[in-house]
Amino acid sequence: MTDLSDLPLRDDLRGKEPYGAPQLDVPYALNTNENPYPPSEALVKALGDAVMDVAGTLNRYPDRDAVALRADLAAFLDADTPGAGLTGDRVWAANGSNEIIQQILQAFGGPGRTALGFEPSYSMHPIITAVSGTRWINAARDEDFGLEPARAVAAVAEHRPDVVFLTSPNNPTGTSLPLETIEAVLDAAPGMVVIDEAYAEFRRSGTPSALTLLDGRPRLIVTRTMSKAFAMAGTRLGYLAADPAVIDALLLVRLPYHLSAVTQAVARTALAHGGELLGTVEALRRERDGIVAWLRGEGLTVADSDANFVLFGHFPDRRRVWEGLLERGVLIREVGPPEWLRVSVGTPDEMAAFRTALKESL
Amino acid sequence: MTDLSDLPLRDDLRGKEPYGAPQLDVPYALNTNENPYPPSEALVKALGDAVMDVAGTLNRYPDRDAVALRADLAAFLDADTPGAGLTGDRVWAANGSNEIIQQILQAFGGPGRTALGFEPSYSMHPIITAVSGTRWINAARDEDFGLEPARAVAAVAEHRPDVVFLTSPNNPTGTSLPLETIEAVLDAAPGMVVIDEAYAEFRRSGTPSALTLLDGRPRLIVTRTMSKAFAMAGTRLGYLAADPAVIDALLLVRLPYHLSAVTQAVARTALAHGGELLGTVEALRRERDGIVAWLRGEGLTVADSDANFVLFGHFPDRRRVWEGLLERGVLIREVGPPEWLRVSVGTPDEMAAFRTALKESL
Repeated sequence: MTDLSDLPLRDDLRGKEPYGAPQLDVPYALNTNENPYPPSEALVKALGDAVMDVAGTLNRYPDRDAVALRADLAAFLDADTPGAGLTGDRVWAANGSNEIIQQILQAFGGPGRTALGFEPSYSMHPIITAVSGTRWINAARDEDFGLEPARAVAAVAEHRPDVVFLTSPNNPTGTSLPLETIEAVLDAAPGMVVIDEAYAEFRRSGTPSALTLLDGRPRLIVTRTMSKAFAMAGTRLGYLAADPAVIDALLLVRLPYHLSAVTQAVARTALAHGGELLGTVEALRRERDGIVAWLRGEGLTVADSDANFVLFGHFPDRRRVWEGLLERGVLIREVGPPEWLRVSVGTPDEMAAFRTALKESL
Repeated sequence: MTDLSDLPLRDDLRGKEPYGAPQLDVPYALNTNENPYPPSEALVKALGDAVMDVAGTLNRYPDRDAVALRADLAAFLDADTPGAGLTGDRVWAANGSNEIIQQILQAFGGPGRTALGFEPSYSMHPIITAVSGTRWINAARDEDFGLEPARAVAAVAEHRPDVVFLTSPNNPTGTSLPLETIEAVLDAAPGMVVIDEAYAEFRRSGTPSALTLLDGRPRLIVTRTMSKAFAMAGTRLGYLAADPAVIDALLLVRLPYHLSAVTQAVARTALAHGGELLGTVEALRRERDGIVAWLRGEGLTVADSDANFVLFGHFPDRRRVWEGLLERGVLIREVGPPEWLRVSVGTPDEMAAFRTALKESL
């Protein structure tokens, strides 16, 4: 029996544990910010038909540049954020936004370069950064999980990172950033600035998207995903909007034919049914606002959320609370700052189960 | 209009061109070693049904570790190479063997480390190596595109690379390696040894697979793909067989949920129809042996091939020959050593068109 420590693993990976929320079979899975509403029967059939349409040529490689899918994604973004003025040549797609982030770091980070983020934030940013050979710099968010422009600029000016990650809304806190922070960071940063908008479709009315800033800012990248609001986590489709020159850079590092013909067909079909898929967003927003109010009513501290999850605390022993919920069939996430827990927003039934389990656990 | 040179691209990527064979719309595409036989109508329907079966839960993330698919791949390898004794915990899968190779380099290569290959060989090995921050070392193959154990060992002893790539059959030459070369390299190498067997199913009778060497050799990795013999290039499914400890290492660098639920379902369905898909291999082998004989009959030099392509020459102006074929609707690949061209093995009709076009072009 060979042990991993017997293999010539890269030194900086030694002793590390694989990333990942536990995949447990529970009645109420509220731990990975999935959209709880499954595709309709009509969409299921449309997805099967779309795959049958391409299956007859699966012996051939897919369109390496996913031109049709990127045009569809651009049209969706234009509808989501009027005035963004996006076209397919300003959009790029990959297997989940994790692969998008990896490609960005491979092109603009790498050995001898640095990437900076403001934690607590998406825990894959530092992990993918490290795997790409880039050095990670953690600059902290404000006490309330926001990010004042002056603080953000000071961190960027001090470290001069090659890549800056900003998240809006931020995971795991749910906090959106004002455009002033993003603009200030862009002005101060010497390199690329990535706005991770994985949860953007859930933002509260009046909350801006960085897509409106793209024009004339070639160092700005906005990433999105179909895993959250779009209810397509199983499809693995992440994408970005940026200047076409950014996409020229990614073409140098992407793996050829990285996006399968099946993924392209399934994603295009889901986009064509965007009305159905995004039709759940309003209900999830309401459920989120309801759970925020309820948690506060219970005397807990809750971060404002523009996403489909809620961070709440404080629990001196959060592991005990997490386990109490799990014993009652409710799986949430032990993530983020100490003493806080994160719950994904599910259906009304799921949130009722969460409320009951939490009351019993406390 | 922003130019790529205006962006803070990684220095070693400046001036590079994106990898990739031209994707041209031609009557006879014999340039990317695809299997020319499309899935049957029955399989097309089965693929659509399989996707419908999973589409109802696409709002959820896929099985992060693709356990069922890996068990199916292990069963296939066991049938392909009796005695390999493989189980799912010794098999790993990703989006094409390119992603498999990238994960291997991320785990065992990286900044300050080296990977060595014997060129001419698969041109993505040095590219993925460079993108991962690993330094590439090119050790040449023998004049006849083979690799004598003593020469291979000398190169490994001189450079002490962290990762060695061996290809069998080799792309673009079609050359298989004797197990003696692989065993000698394994004994001499301080790090991981990757045998890229993308074309293994096409090997001539009696040609061994490195799968038979896996037992007790935890630094050996054998990579395979469903893109070639399996006629599933559009699905993007690469895989490897190795010691379970190797897979523990890859878990540290893989992107979470890298393999979609749709890809897992499509690949499992294709494996269940392996008899149909691999049923074309014998015909392609015969066609290959026929085209080798024909080219030699025309007075050309041809490399022995265990793959579904043939390397032939010499052409002082190979570009002119390539263009002559393209003018006649036949797209082959201008790749490999100077004065040589590579043609993928297609259907009898496609190869007849190739023969006619080549005679006219010469």
